[in-house]
Amino acid sequence: MPLGEFDLIARYFTRPTRRAVLGIGDDCALLAPTPGLQWAVSSDLLVEGRHFVSTVAPNALGHKSLAVNLSDLAACGATPVAFSLMLALPRVDEAFLQGFADGLFALADAHGIELVGGDTTAGPLAVGITVMGEVPPAQALRRDAARAGDDLWVSHAPGRGLGDARLALEVLRDRAAVPGEAFARVRRAMEWPQPRVALGQRLRGIAHAAIDLSDGLSGDLGHVLQRSGVGARLEFAALPRSPELATQPDALLRTCLLEGGDDYELLFSAPRTARAAVRQAAAESGVAVSCIGELLPERGLRVAWPDGRTTARATRGFDHFASDWEPT
Amino acid sequence: MPLGEFDLIARYFTRPTRRAVLGIGDDCALLAPTPGLQWAVSSDLLVEGRHFVSTVAPNALGHKSLAVNLSDLAACGATPVAFSLMLALPRVDEAFLQGFADGLFALADAHGIELVGGDTTAGPLAVGITVMGEVPPAQALRRDAARAGDDLWVSHAPGRGLGDARLALEVLRDRAAVPGEAFARVRRAMEWPQPRVALGQRLRGIAHAAIDLSDGLSGDLGHVLQRSGVGARLEFAALPRSPELATQPDALLRTCLLEGGDDYELLFSAPRTARAAVRQAAAESGVAVSCIGELLPERGLRVAWPDGRTTARATRGFDHFASDWEPT
Repeated sequence: MPLGEFDLIARYFTRPTRRAVLGIGDDCALLAPTPGLQWAVSSDLLVEGRHFVSTVAPNALGHKSLAVNLSDLAACGATPVAFSLMLALPRVDEAFLQGFADGLFALADAHGIELVGGDTTAGPLAVGITVMGEVPPAQALRRDAARAGDDLWVSHAPGRGLGDARLALEVLRDRAAVPGEAFARVRRAMEWPQPRVALGQRLRGIAHAAIDLSDGLSGDLGHVLQRSGVGARLEFAALPRSPELATQPDALLRTCLLEGGDDYELLFSAPRTARAAVRQAAAESGVAVSCIGELLPERGLRVAWPDGRTTARATRGFDHFASDWEPT
Repeated sequence: MPLGEFDLIARYFTRPTRRAVLGIGDDCALLAPTPGLQWAVSSDLLVEGRHFVSTVAPNALGHKSLAVNLSDLAACGATPVAFSLMLALPRVDEAFLQGFADGLFALADAHGIELVGGDTTAGPLAVGITVMGEVPPAQALRRDAARAGDDLWVSHAPGRGLGDARLALEVLRDRAAVPGEAFARVRRAMEWPQPRVALGQRLRGIAHAAIDLSDGLSGDLGHVLQRSGVGARLEFAALPRSPELATQPDALLRTCLLEGGDDYELLFSAPRTARAAVRQAAAESGVAVSCIGELLPERGLRVAWPDGRTTARATRGFDHFASDWEPT
């Protein structure tokens, strides 16, 4: 006999709560906010065939579903506290559920965040998560706080860079080729993104504005520029890239770096006087950072290319309804 | 040219925030919890074809999506503060979005709760909402606080009762007949449930345990009995019912009242000494309440029937994976 909803929740998703006053199993979870802190909230919905392929490993899906949400907390500089999970499942598949829960809870434990509630239902496979975190008043990193003259920074794994997730997608769609072992590395960027939570917290008081890269560099940078009322100059040569991406044809390289999507790195601005502090925050977080340009008083995005030309570029992001594939 | 995701959010879902420090448009929303209060959180996911029919009016869907979540806050006695919305849409249909937003915000405004964030994506139609509210420490109404000797109460609209939503579903499935105007009334119970938020708050300090009726009376009562370690005796004749349901055949009447689902009324227990206080709380909330039985030290559910017999009854609730239709 297949598991019912309540058995499923009990078996795969109910664990003792450490922080919550009341966890899974009542009408609401109850949490005691830390006195004096603000509450940061974000939600992301992942749908099969749009945000992940049907053949994704269940533990990778569990990981990524929470990772993309934690990445939003990271971009605000918030400390993760709790999350709720909405899960629509075509059928009760225990192997899937076990793998999904394993990936989900491994990342949750790594960040000290606990599952406090949610909803499961039959339906086309979809995962919706709402994360909650805490941040001191007036210290959250926002999109509207960038200033002309700021350096523009991006985080990345040491020796890697932006655009690998997009490169993996292009390979899966037969639009690019990357040999076997190298493909495993770029696919890992797509399926196992690492939210930069520690870096985000350390950037409070150092960075001015921050956003997480989910829709691609130019689009997400565009949000910061628009909200902050400034422009930017990007140094294309300064954009960090993996060896696998660096050897791709120019057009693909540009697409992956500038419009890649699904990077889940932090893009942030900080005053020039904070360069040492930024590098120290990154080192303490075990993350690399690259300075990729500067913010300007004139609106718009300009890209300085390796050949010495500088061109204006639209800050178009991913349109989630115009494409058949979406970053989250 | 169809609306993109960001235009869609700007046009239909972005409104000035009153309470939130930072609303829609950044990586996270920021909220300032009221000092000394706890934070109550609940999530519900509604999927087309499972929780609502494709022909549902968009404003009814917007209303119900939030109503079922507010009902969870009501069952805890929490005061609604904010919610996030995850919306998967097969296509950008502006008439649908306008109607959906109208229904959603009308209910949000009625309860002083604001939309602070979320996610929209292409995908099979689904609506996921996470609500957040506040409640004083140790005053939340919980499922595990019922005591033997308590009266068992249920809320309902004056002159109406439980089971109308289920009756409407049975009519839509050609398993029951209700003439035209009367059907509009029972269909209203299914599509426009009224969360008992005011009553829930007034029951703090009066009721012992509470739960909202979403999976049907016997199943939801079963959760309270199990968690509280008690049993119950239900008076079938005392179960409130609408005139439309009262005249249905016995078997259908029993099904709708005991296993109906989708009622979104509050089921709660309170000491006998609190009868006057319960009635006053209901009157102040503009809601009717009926005393439908009592809690007993012996485990299990017994139903006292109008013919004088008393029978044991399983407290089976709705199994969301075993049926082709689900209450939320």
